[in-house]
Amino acid sequence: MSTLTNKDRAEVLIQALPYIQKYNGKILVIKYGGNAMINEELQDAVMGDLVLLNLIGVRVVLVHGGGPEISDMLKRVGKETQFVDGLRVTDGETVEIAQMVLAGKINKNLVARITRAGGKSIGLCGMDGGMILADKRDERLGFVGDVKKVDPKPILDMLDMGYIPVIATTGYDMEGNSYNINADTAAAEIATALGAESMISMTDIAGLLEDKDDPSTLISKVYVSDVPALIKKGIISGGMIPKVDCCTYAIRNGVKKVFIIDGRIPHAIIIEVLTDEGIGTMFVQ
Amino acid sequence: MSTLTNKDRAEVLIQALPYIQKYNGKILVIKYGGNAMINEELQDAVMGDLVLLNLIGVRVVLVHGGGPEISDMLKRVGKETQFVDGLRVTDGETVEIAQMVLAGKINKNLVARITRAGGKSIGLCGMDGGMILADKRDERLGFVGDVKKVDPKPILDMLDMGYIPVIATTGYDMEGNSYNINADTAAAEIATALGAESMISMTDIAGLLEDKDDPSTLISKVYVSDVPALIKKGIISGGMIPKVDCCTYAIRNGVKKVFIIDGRIPHAIIIEVLTDEGIGTMFVQ
Amino acid sequence: MSTLTNKDRAEVLIQALPYIQKYNGKILVIKYGGNAMINEELQDAVMGDLVLLNLIGVRVVLVHGGGPEISDMLKRVGKETQFVDGLRVTDGETVEIAQMVLAGKINKNLVARITRAGGKSIGLCGMDGGMILADKRDERLGFVGDVKKVDPKPILDMLDMGYIPVIATTGYDMEGNSYNINADTAAAEIATALGAESMISMTDIAGLLEDKDDPSTLISKVYVSDVPALIKKGIISGGMIPKVDCCTYAIRNGVKKVFIIDGRIPHAIIIEVLTDEGIGTMFVQ
Amino acid sequence: MSTLTNKDRAEVLIQALPYIQKYNGKILVIKYGGNAMINEELQDAVMGDLVLLNLIGVRVVLVHGGGPEISDMLKRVGKETQFVDGLRVTDGETVEIAQMVLAGKINKNLVARITRAGGKSIGLCGMDGGMILADKRDERLGFVGDVKKVDPKPILDMLDMGYIPVIATTGYDMEGNSYNINADTAAAEIATALGAESMISMTDIAGLLEDKDDPSTLISKVYVSDVPALIKKGIISGGMIPKVDCCTYAIRNGVKKVFIIDGRIPHAIIIEVLTDEGIGTMFVQ
Amino acid sequence: MSTLTNKDRAEVLIQALPYIQKYNGKILVIKYGGNAMINEELQDAVMGDLVLLNLIGVRVVLVHGGGPEISDMLKRVGKETQFVDGLRVTDGETVEIAQMVLAGKINKNLVARITRAGGKSIGLCGMDGGMILADKRDERLGFVGDVKKVDPKPILDMLDMGYIPVIATTGYDMEGNSYNINADTAAAEIATALGAESMISMTDIAGLLEDKDDPSTLISKVYVSDVPALIKKGIISGGMIPKVDCCTYAIRNGVKKVFIIDGRIPHAIIIEVLTDEGIGTMFVQ
Amino acid sequence: MSTLTNKDRAEVLIQALPYIQKYNGKILVIKYGGNAMINEELQDAVMGDLVLLNLIGVRVVLVHGGGPEISDMLKRVGKETQFVDGLRVTDGETVEIAQMVLAGKINKNLVARITRAGGKSIGLCGMDGGMILADKRDERLGFVGDVKKVDPKPILDMLDMGYIPVIATTGYDMEGNSYNINADTAAAEIATALGAESMISMTDIAGLLEDKDDPSTLISKVYVSDVPALIKKGIISGGMIPKVDCCTYAIRNGVKKVFIIDGRIPHAIIIEVLTDEGIGTMFVQ
Repeated sequence: MSTLTNKDRAEVLIQALPYIQKYNGKILVIKYGGNAMINEELQDAVMGDLVLLNLIGVRVVLVHGGGPEISDMLKRVGKETQFVDGLRVTDGETVEIAQMVLAGKINKNLVARITRAGGKSIGLCGMDGGMILADKRDERLGFVGDVKKVDPKPILDMLDMGYIPVIATTGYDMEGNSYNINADTAAAEIATALGAESMISMTDIAGLLEDKDDPSTLISKVYVSDVPALIKKGIISGGMIPKVDCCTYAIRNGVKKVFIIDGRIPHAIIIEVLTDEGIGTMFVQ
Repeated sequence: MSTLTNKDRAEVLIQALPYIQKYNGKILVIKYGGNAMINEELQDAVMGDLVLLNLIGVRVVLVHGGGPEISDMLKRVGKETQFVDGLRVTDGETVEIAQMVLAGKINKNLVARITRAGGKSIGLCGMDGGMILADKRDERLGFVGDVKKVDPKPILDMLDMGYIPVIATTGYDMEGNSYNINADTAAAEIATALGAESMISMTDIAGLLEDKDDPSTLISKVYVSDVPALIKKGIISGGMIPKVDCCTYAIRNGVKKVFIIDGRIPHAIIIEVLTDEGIGTMFVQ
Repeated sequence: MSTLTNKDRAEVLIQALPYIQKYNGKILVIKYGGNAMINEELQDAVMGDLVLLNLIGVRVVLVHGGGPEISDMLKRVGKETQFVDGLRVTDGETVEIAQMVLAGKINKNLVARITRAGGKSIGLCGMDGGMILADKRDERLGFVGDVKKVDPKPILDMLDMGYIPVIATTGYDMEGNSYNINADTAAAEIATALGAESMISMTDIAGLLEDKDDPSTLISKVYVSDVPALIKKGIISGGMIPKVDCCTYAIRNGVKKVFIIDGRIPHAIIIEVLTDEGIGTMFVQ
Repeated sequence: MSTLTNKDRAEVLIQALPYIQKYNGKILVIKYGGNAMINEELQDAVMGDLVLLNLIGVRVVLVHGGGPEISDMLKRVGKETQFVDGLRVTDGETVEIAQMVLAGKINKNLVARITRAGGKSIGLCGMDGGMILADKRDERLGFVGDVKKVDPKPILDMLDMGYIPVIATTGYDMEGNSYNINADTAAAEIATALGAESMISMTDIAGLLEDKDDPSTLISKVYVSDVPALIKKGIISGGMIPKVDCCTYAIRNGVKKVFIIDGRIPHAIIIEVLTDEGIGTMFVQ
Repeated sequence: MSTLTNKDRAEVLIQALPYIQKYNGKILVIKYGGNAMINEELQDAVMGDLVLLNLIGVRVVLVHGGGPEISDMLKRVGKETQFVDGLRVTDGETVEIAQMVLAGKINKNLVARITRAGGKSIGLCGMDGGMILADKRDERLGFVGDVKKVDPKPILDMLDMGYIPVIATTGYDMEGNSYNINADTAAAEIATALGAESMISMTDIAGLLEDKDDPSTLISKVYVSDVPALIKKGIISGGMIPKVDCCTYAIRNGVKKVFIIDGRIPHAIIIEVLTDEGIGTMFVQ
Repeated sequence: MSTLTNKDRAEVLIQALPYIQKYNGKILVIKYGGNAMINEELQDAVMGDLVLLNLIGVRVVLVHGGGPEISDMLKRVGKETQFVDGLRVTDGETVEIAQMVLAGKINKNLVARITRAGGKSIGLCGMDGGMILADKRDERLGFVGDVKKVDPKPILDMLDMGYIPVIATTGYDMEGNSYNINADTAAAEIATALGAESMISMTDIAGLLEDKDDPSTLISKVYVSDVPALIKKGIISGGMIPKVDCCTYAIRNGVKKVFIIDGRIPHAIIIEVLTDEGIGTMFVQ
């Protein structure tokens, strides 16, 4: 790269033109979370990507999680977490901590990073504008929420005024409770409610692999009707199953394309959106 | 009250008409904090007041603090707070906790209360839309911030779209630091930047008293030019001095009227704004 | 009332919140006439009510009659009125006088009262903007008009610009004739053409009474399908029959609720709209 | 005319082009009154002129009087009129009659004529939108009003929505009084408040004549600075003096051109505005 | 005409009122070409007509050809034209010349004439805004284009901003070719794409004649279903057949009325649009 | 370049972010002409650059000349060109040819290229919207025009609707004459009238060179006050003098920066605007 001339650079920019045209004015929901979010430098890269996409006319929405930081904070206050069926049991104290970490720390720090990258962003959570109405999934799990209804209006209002909405996936109910909502689920519901063109789920794997130990066996494109077979074969397994379910849900509800990409690659979003390379797995109808 | 007929109620509503007319379309900044904020029932009352004011055409902005809850959270994580010259020393860990409590817990809970009261609100902090740029007040105090610049645009954008902006008083700088900013100071700066008609500071005292032990000696109106004399006499003293300084600052920078009222009185804002009674102390030029 | 504290007043205001929310942005047509209109003080009370409703976001439209004042003016010019089937025979001179009294005196005086109460109003009659096209009901009655078509555009234009439209119920035809139109009929047609949420008919009775001599037998709610039975029983009789027919017409054509209330009660509109008390009779589908 | 071919007609239309261009988007206030208003056929001709001007983009405002019809109505109710210094003494009953005749009869009939000619008009008087605030000229004259303030907003609102505003020159005060205001005076004040391009005063004389018995001595153009000399010479005399004073007032307050034309000539306005012929007397700075 | 008084002129203008009302806000496409276009004085007359129509609220669009001038230019460069089946064979050099003459000379000169007549115009050809996508009619004819798709957006954009669009009928394809498109065809396609109220085709004949040598046998109105019979009878023949086909096409695709008028008559458009005389042949459904 | 990975490409895009931010919403006038315009592939490259800039929010305006093609066409029609003081003598026939070539051929072909590159463009010349009013520079030179007035409104209208305006530099006068206007002059006048941020003049030299035979002696930045000295030294000489005069004129009239760049370098505009490399000579105040 150090040897790239500016003529080369101009050439690269001009080659991005058809991709820019394709996404101009379209809504793109990015689910950001997990290990891809821990590294500070990577965070700045991702926020820069959002600012660039926003500037070239993509209506970009960031939905983030924050499990590791919630766990870390729970540990700091000496709160022991229990899991039932692999889901965190979220009592009152836990959901309070989760909300603080998600909506107060991670969310606003991402917003500040966007500001420093030259963009304008508003950090929202499910309470803002009455966006994510939730109810309890299961009494035993406490305040683990199912999305009852997403009101896309606050997000569209922010987009219309030129802000990049950054969304922490908490929910509320009319009795005054807060809920912790799985970020993949929330992103799929938000993409659906917005009628998004695409959703990109940033993970810390390369995508679906035929052979999980061989990155060269990446499956580039999956028809959602083939997902059950892939699960049966074990190609989709473990923690990937609920993630892929969210992708399927979004596609079945009108989102045109959903991507699972490797968030550890710098500027993976830009590569996916603005070049001819599909770097992860794309789900389509 | 239980004996009030609906004719009496209608009479009361109609008598509020001139007050509604006076505030219609005007910006009113409310500083909310301290003990007035602890009681849950009072919180609901205040949020109901905001929804009512918003509905009758007042452009209302809520700025809140949250000192007691920050202290409580610091205690929960076993962090000991140090004070220098009566100001909290705010190291990196402290400002992180403060931001989480302010922007993630208190702010979003107030937003949820507004939703439950039938209003629409967006919870902002100083990072959102690049609103509050800050710098260090004093190296010894750590991340205690002075307001360098308030950009009123994000607040005005929210008002224009009909949302009640609820603001947590954190600040940011371009190096990636967060700052804890005194809520009275921030409210005064925000009211100034917005060209607000009025600012109401909700406290847990009745207002300025000639004799601090006698509520009947309430001073209803203070010209800001008389403040130094009142300090000299000891009528303004201790923690009231910086609060009154903020009032003076706002008045000197274009806010028409600033009120210190007793937030422990239910619907104190409505009494102040929509009746002929001035229940606290009003500062004017 | 004199002993009401301002805390009580604030309480009353805040209790009106759900009612204000319910009517916010909705169209409310008020039919005003008869004896309820004679008293000057009552007129000021009603105009104050309109200004208040307008200010809190109700799109309020006033339709007024003026029979007694027309009769009075006819007497002053020495014109004797004849009635056929209980309907005024309206010759050329009579309709000219009626128009002058309705559109020139009563209408504009109501507009001036609204101005003095701090509101902005435009006084319209059926000619303005070509609003009420009429034709002759019956050759023998002269210029008694049936509504042929209401164009809601001029009313909506006035509402959109923030004015309270005050409407005198004259009509016109393309041959240059003016018509006197019954105000109850016109109000029902106007409410229908506007797709109004509600219509309130202000009369000088308490509403429908089971026993006309016992106000405690007020019927609060009437399904329009029950009207024929009520007429048969004599509960609706005489001059109330055409009034109730107008209510029925409006409900059957899309107006959600129609109220007959006692206009002699000060602020009856406010009681009906902004409290939990239904003070008259409500008609619904 | 009967022998005019359609080629001739097209020629005439095309020759009007520069005049249409000159007035496009400009405000033209027309004062209409006196004998020019009595003939029904002439009224239809004038209203047709307004509709044409409105359609080709002139922002036309009609201000009308109605002295003869007021006198007639006063006679019908047996009210004797008294004059002091040539001005009608206007007691309470008289101003009530005047308002009814002006705002209820003449005004709305003109509006209906415009509707029949295919235009859209709203009939306003000084009460509408709080347009003409007045006070007493002279205690001895009763409710003869001086214009205290014209609020041009309601007129501009009507123009912006495409209506032709037709204005009856009554005034109001905040004590609930109505006033009769001289239509020439009101038209001049309205033209001034609107920043009108031109005002046309339609009278029943040919314009200013050097020799009042010889129509060939018409003075086409008068500089307002020459008015005193013309009064001295007797060329402007009697009832023309206050009329000319209104013209002078309008010119001195920013109206570009004021015309006195003979309203008895069919389509005099069109001749004045859309041809190269100045048919009356034009006043300029 | 020289003896016309201004009263006559005003009368003519006012008699045009119903015609102006009828066309107000409607789209009128004028096909201008052939011999009607050669005379400079006539050109100025037509442009004046457009400016007048534009000013009185008609949304007027001019589509022009230019065969004679193209032939003239081809001759000047020594290019010999060949015809196949009566259609010009249009090789690369020919289409280049045609485009220059149409879009660079005739089009822009018409635009300049409109400017001199006091109007505002933008000269477009089929390339502008991607308006006329074309393909080859017949390999043997070279770059003679069929209209594949008309995008009405650039024309509507110009109309919305108040410009008179003047359109040269070239087309483009995505391979970089230009096409010469028959102006009658293009006008019919444009009128259809715009949903025009009317199309006027200006020719150098008086319209359809029963007896082609007797102008008194003009057929005023033709139902498109009668066209085949008229062709059979020889009343429509030769070069008129494709012209009439375009008229039929436009009518069948939603244009309400299509006129063939004699462009050699000064202000023929104004006569057709603004008087009661139909001077040519009108086609209707 | 062939070895560039998509990661490299993403990196390049993200590095363009600050440059995109700097030009977002700003007007950039590009003067395009001479030898830089002859090569078809280069033309496509430049049009692609414009589409890219337009898409990322730069308000880009293209002003083009076309001397060589005019000369070529004159030759084809056998017209011999005469020069006086190095300026083409432009008689009636010559200006007609020039207009056809500029406004009909070059202009519309550039517009078609933009369409093919996925952009939307409108081709204008000085007649459109009355944009460039001209008068004769010198009787001896015929229709060589000086710019008398540029009306920026048609250009701004096109920009506001999202079109890329492409401008042929012809002028008009109110007598019906066309003028050929030097493209450098016209571009400078247009940039000035638009209040452009920058103007880029694309030439076929590398920029100003200390030693005209040594490209390594490129002068990157010139203060307009130093221009006379550079002329004196011979560094600016010959045909560059009027070009540089235009640059100076634009800078002195409010354009912030003017660049002379080498149009033969592919994507020179993108290199200049979106990278850190200044590839030509920049003129500043």
